[in-house]
Amino acid sequence: MRCALPLLLLLSSAPIHAQAEMRPRAREAGVIVGILQPGPLNAITDVKGVKVGQVTLPRSRDVNTGVTAILPHGGNLFQDKVPAGFVAYNAFGKFMGSTQVVELGEVETPILLTNTLNVAEAGAAAVEWTLAQPGNEEVRSVNAVVGETNDGLLNDIRARHVTVADARRAIESAADGQVEEGVVGAGAGTVAFGFKAGIGTASRLLPASLGGWTVGVLVQANYGGVLTITGVPVGGKLGRYDYRQQVEDRKADGSVVIIIATDAPLSDRNLRRVAERAFAGIARTGSSFSNGSGDYALAFSTAQAVRRTADRRTDAASVQDLPNDRISPIFQAAIEATEEAVLNALFKAHMVEGHRGTAQALPLEKVLPMLEIAR
Amino acid sequence: MRCALPLLLLLSSAPIHAQAEMRPRAREAGVIVGILQPGPLNAITDVKGVKVGQVTLPRSRDVNTGVTAILPHGGNLFQDKVPAGFVAYNAFGKFMGSTQVVELGEVETPILLTNTLNVAEAGAAAVEWTLAQPGNEEVRSVNAVVGETNDGLLNDIRARHVTVADARRAIESAADGQVEEGVVGAGAGTVAFGFKAGIGTASRLLPASLGGWTVGVLVQANYGGVLTITGVPVGGKLGRYDYRQQVEDRKADGSVVIIIATDAPLSDRNLRRVAERAFAGIARTGSSFSNGSGDYALAFSTAQAVRRTADRRTDAASVQDLPNDRISPIFQAAIEATEEAVLNALFKAHMVEGHRGTAQALPLEKVLPMLEIAR
Amino acid sequence: MRCALPLLLLLSSAPIHAQAEMRPRAREAGVIVGILQPGPLNAITDVKGVKVGQVTLPRSRDVNTGVTAILPHGGNLFQDKVPAGFVAYNAFGKFMGSTQVVELGEVETPILLTNTLNVAEAGAAAVEWTLAQPGNEEVRSVNAVVGETNDGLLNDIRARHVTVADARRAIESAADGQVEEGVVGAGAGTVAFGFKAGIGTASRLLPASLGGWTVGVLVQANYGGVLTITGVPVGGKLGRYDYRQQVEDRKADGSVVIIIATDAPLSDRNLRRVAERAFAGIARTGSSFSNGSGDYALAFSTAQAVRRTADRRTDAASVQDLPNDRISPIFQAAIEATEEAVLNALFKAHMVEGHRGTAQALPLEKVLPMLEIAR
Amino acid sequence: MRCALPLLLLLSSAPIHAQAEMRPRAREAGVIVGILQPGPLNAITDVKGVKVGQVTLPRSRDVNTGVTAILPHGGNLFQDKVPAGFVAYNAFGKFMGSTQVVELGEVETPILLTNTLNVAEAGAAAVEWTLAQPGNEEVRSVNAVVGETNDGLLNDIRARHVTVADARRAIESAADGQVEEGVVGAGAGTVAFGFKAGIGTASRLLPASLGGWTVGVLVQANYGGVLTITGVPVGGKLGRYDYRQQVEDRKADGSVVIIIATDAPLSDRNLRRVAERAFAGIARTGSSFSNGSGDYALAFSTAQAVRRTADRRTDAASVQDLPNDRISPIFQAAIEATEEAVLNALFKAHMVEGHRGTAQALPLEKVLPMLEIAR
Repeated sequence: MRCALPLLLLLSSAPIHAQAEMRPRAREAGVIVGILQPGPLNAITDVKGVKVGQVTLPRSRDVNTGVTAILPHGGNLFQDKVPAGFVAYNAFGKFMGSTQVVELGEVETPILLTNTLNVAEAGAAAVEWTLAQPGNEEVRSVNAVVGETNDGLLNDIRARHVTVADARRAIESAADGQVEEGVVGAGAGTVAFGFKAGIGTASRLLPASLGGWTVGVLVQANYGGVLTITGVPVGGKLGRYDYRQQVEDRKADGSVVIIIATDAPLSDRNLRRVAERAFAGIARTGSSFSNGSGDYALAFSTAQAVRRTADRRTDAASVQDLPNDRISPIFQAAIEATEEAVLNALFKAHMVEGHRGTAQALPLEKVLPMLEIAR
Repeated sequence: MRCALPLLLLLSSAPIHAQAEMRPRAREAGVIVGILQPGPLNAITDVKGVKVGQVTLPRSRDVNTGVTAILPHGGNLFQDKVPAGFVAYNAFGKFMGSTQVVELGEVETPILLTNTLNVAEAGAAAVEWTLAQPGNEEVRSVNAVVGETNDGLLNDIRARHVTVADARRAIESAADGQVEEGVVGAGAGTVAFGFKAGIGTASRLLPASLGGWTVGVLVQANYGGVLTITGVPVGGKLGRYDYRQQVEDRKADGSVVIIIATDAPLSDRNLRRVAERAFAGIARTGSSFSNGSGDYALAFSTAQAVRRTADRRTDAASVQDLPNDRISPIFQAAIEATEEAVLNALFKAHMVEGHRGTAQALPLEKVLPMLEIAR
Repeated sequence: MRCALPLLLLLSSAPIHAQAEMRPRAREAGVIVGILQPGPLNAITDVKGVKVGQVTLPRSRDVNTGVTAILPHGGNLFQDKVPAGFVAYNAFGKFMGSTQVVELGEVETPILLTNTLNVAEAGAAAVEWTLAQPGNEEVRSVNAVVGETNDGLLNDIRARHVTVADARRAIESAADGQVEEGVVGAGAGTVAFGFKAGIGTASRLLPASLGGWTVGVLVQANYGGVLTITGVPVGGKLGRYDYRQQVEDRKADGSVVIIIATDAPLSDRNLRRVAERAFAGIARTGSSFSNGSGDYALAFSTAQAVRRTADRRTDAASVQDLPNDRISPIFQAAIEATEEAVLNALFKAHMVEGHRGTAQALPLEKVLPMLEIAR
Repeated sequence: MRCALPLLLLLSSAPIHAQAEMRPRAREAGVIVGILQPGPLNAITDVKGVKVGQVTLPRSRDVNTGVTAILPHGGNLFQDKVPAGFVAYNAFGKFMGSTQVVELGEVETPILLTNTLNVAEAGAAAVEWTLAQPGNEEVRSVNAVVGETNDGLLNDIRARHVTVADARRAIESAADGQVEEGVVGAGAGTVAFGFKAGIGTASRLLPASLGGWTVGVLVQANYGGVLTITGVPVGGKLGRYDYRQQVEDRKADGSVVIIIATDAPLSDRNLRRVAERAFAGIARTGSSFSNGSGDYALAFSTAQAVRRTADRRTDAASVQDLPNDRISPIFQAAIEATEEAVLNALFKAHMVEGHRGTAQALPLEKVLPMLEIAR
């Protein structure tokens, strides 16, 4: 559905709780990123089996934070591990669990996102939850995977509001289907390019001639630069979010965590390469990848044919492998879906007044006309 | 100087040798990349002391190749090494010497670029030349640094035309001042986004409030994707260089090597981070970072205060260090200069008929109006 | 003091609590590792300023675990960060905080060691403690650094006994001077080569001609292989800890975390290289670096001249740098001190009966005669 | 065959050309490394299909150098690539081709070893030879893989004696069966621990209960430290090769390149892990991994079930994969075979008088009694 401009004009005067539902996703507003088509939900959950759960802490001026959980599949993740790749583009961030992901090439738990100072609580939840799953009674080693960005502008981050129980609820509430975007879960308090951002998602479905695979992306967007939408330097045109000012104010700092799922049967090495492409998508949104940014991507495959089941972990086994020569379309899909996921985070997020300041929503009524002219 | 459109219309009918001089650089044609200002030459040689030498082999249908040499300074490079950082974004390429650059954090020779199958000859030249420099009589270990891209469409690359002597001449002819762009040196036979590309360069001069440093970039552009100029998907609009077709034809493959110089006193670690930002610039030009691409960046500092002189290599010494917290503007400069250097390679390159095909020049007379409308 | 053999014969019959004090360190028992001399304490605390704190949970059959904290200096670690390098040799482990250490080249918190399933609690303690330090009132990002090994044989690790408060006490109790070894802190429940191991430490003081620097090492030893002491394959000779059996039983798995301190003014790059040498020391103890091992090393410099103080983080500053050409003796020191620290962990550890089994102490009365004959 | 001591006593007085044949390999002299058994040849060629070719330049006082080529199999290496892993432990060296090996996880050419300043010539030979193979008529990109160590003491390395033709002959002469060791090929001029060293090889054949795989190693040994044989610090006992002296003289510097072959069906990720274990073997020989060392390892699998044939490079294919949980015995085998290969290089090498000095052979008549006592 394409969002009519008049509707958008109404947005700025609607009550906050209504805005979230009224604000369109980027594609609904007519913004087309790239040349490939999205999947049915245009979400990470287009990759079959992937589940997302989000817990947003009850919001107040001082509490704007939460947890987002991504489950690569609905079975026992520890027993049926998924191959995975990981990249730190700029690692001013606290990504927990990455070294084991790289060494063994796999993820064995839910992937959690939260705020910078609650990584430990999310990690504890992933461990507790994994130990408690039926079939894991003898498990004595769990590699919790937790990403974060810093929501310290809107959230009283030093108070460390997120509890282990909050994070467990995010895992336990994970479901397939549509994914809530914007001011939700680990994105409740994040800001990007000076505007309220949060969680965003998107997907690409490759045509059969290019393999027919699905690539889904979920981002926790919280970074700076000069916001650029399909090439238009919107941030500059809006007059307030000039890069130089940001640098001087240290407002360009921030972070982005990108989770990529695919049903293509990829090796961990090729999943690492897919993860690396996410940053090309981020680059196209205008990121300056500033010093203070914690920019991480993790990609996993849900294909049964590469899953590390008990049998395949016991002896030499046959696995599928999509060769290097067939992977370029998946790279392109990852780039496009990442760029669009960020736009969705910005498009869907409403204004939030918080602990140390206010983050305005991206003024779509001003932005879309810029894009109209451009396209 | 802004290039008038009528002049551009003449380009396509002018003789080849005239086109090279007539074609404008991106900025001359009114294309502005980013928000920072270029240095006086808008070239890597804006970083004081940096020298560039290029040898283009006498061209014929089967010979379209050459060598480009970048010298970090005009002194004895082996005795006064420069700190350096290196990143392989997608390493389907033969970058020689990278492991020692990473381990020791330094470059001790000229940096050479050539075609894929002549890396050895360029490496031999760097070794020979270094051994022959006055003061190097006792040198018995030389780490030659050579990058390459594949010019096999226009050049009969299997014939391995470049000789050690050709590469030495590139080193020996290095000079400061303006840098020739387009169909020259290691860019004589390269193609990007389906158009003739080659060598390009650009620079950024940070304002004093952001440190006043200069960042210069030189690229050997030879890669694919959907050409995007300041956000406008020019490649798609021109109707011939659709990504899907490229993937199916394997024409998206290619490579880019990016050399970055700065006078900021950076540690090798922070130079690696600067090198990594180059790929954000590449991303903005529409690269899909395909499987077959060899995408490498190397950054070095020319600052005297970090140079590894004989004295500083002998005992604990004092060096300057620009801290992490001050580096973000240099990141932004590297991103912008890389993007613009690629555009310059495309803008300046004229059509070349070669060994297995022809690469058309970017049709500026069609492209610039698209940008006019866009901006 | 060299330990007389008769005394050792008494060890096996002495009560446990007495054994800990009676058992000698390796060097006290006449075992000399390498060719360099140790510092006065032969401990990581020979590096001036370094503090170690250890909390051992009240022991029972099911509880054999704890926390060890290493503080690079006694000041505000967040404000006066220390340069650091990190290496994962085999990364089947949950080392928290490593990516930021690598990106920024620094440590800004205490370094904590604990068991595999309590990394989150230790991380939370490091965050809490750092937020609470005077001068850190505006801090909103803390990179907790936590290593672990798996004490699941002796400790009911699934019960996750270690609390945030336990870990804070480890930090707060940190002191200089002698370091307790063996069954203590994060080593309370660890096992190496089939024997009870734990925490060990050692140091090397380079002669003035080689720089006069001190290198101190602390290990949490919990890994497998064929125990080798100064080259003698003690593990094999003792008849029970044959490698093949270990592999078949999966008992060779385990981990080791190695923390290295030095007062040499090293860059983060050279600290990474020092960290990498730790594994040469581990190799000499007979490690097979098995799949299940989480083998990590982190090295930091305490030199004032490289410390990242507020001033040095604000603008280009002068720092000291020991050049590449002067670092080899520090490598040798790190290798030797690591090997000796592991031996100390084994020599000092007494027998522990635990949750799922018993770990015998290394039978010094049998081992030392093997070495006597050997030397 | 175990070498009788009286025979050894004859060695020092025998003419050089006779010594090479008379000197025993380590195991022939009764030195047993580790707990696993070697294969029939105790050589890298125990891995079926692997071929080794060596060219030693006609020796004189000023010429002591050559080339060693390892071919993973006897077919078309470019068309049937082998998965491979690569590790730089200390990268003061010029290993050509490593970045593409890492990115794509494969080797597509012969692996060449030579001296530091002739890497380019060896690389040119690998390219030429590959282009010339039947079936490679359309190949336009070749990733030559070349390692080196510095033989500048015995060889007039600055004269760059090795030609492209020499290197091609090494490739073309490659054969299976026994491998010549000591003063041969790329080891003609190398020195380790102050003694003449060179090329060495060894293998391990795992028992069926541990998978039954073969692991073969070939080393080019040229590094320093305190020579240690099965734990006995032989270097120190011989009185001349004290570490401190070496450091002061910079004689500890040097390098080692280690090539590992296995028939186990390993992923490139696990091959990287195997490569990393080589350094544990090097550590046990007493290496100090000094600053000036170029210490590299490359491991590949010859298993048909993982080979990247034209079919498997075209579409998603089934490949075998030995899981993480089954790899530890291969790690142990790689450690042991590396250690033994180095000893073989030293045991087999005879004295060489060269360009700037003389390298004595390891005096076995003195060394073996030390070991006899020790064992």
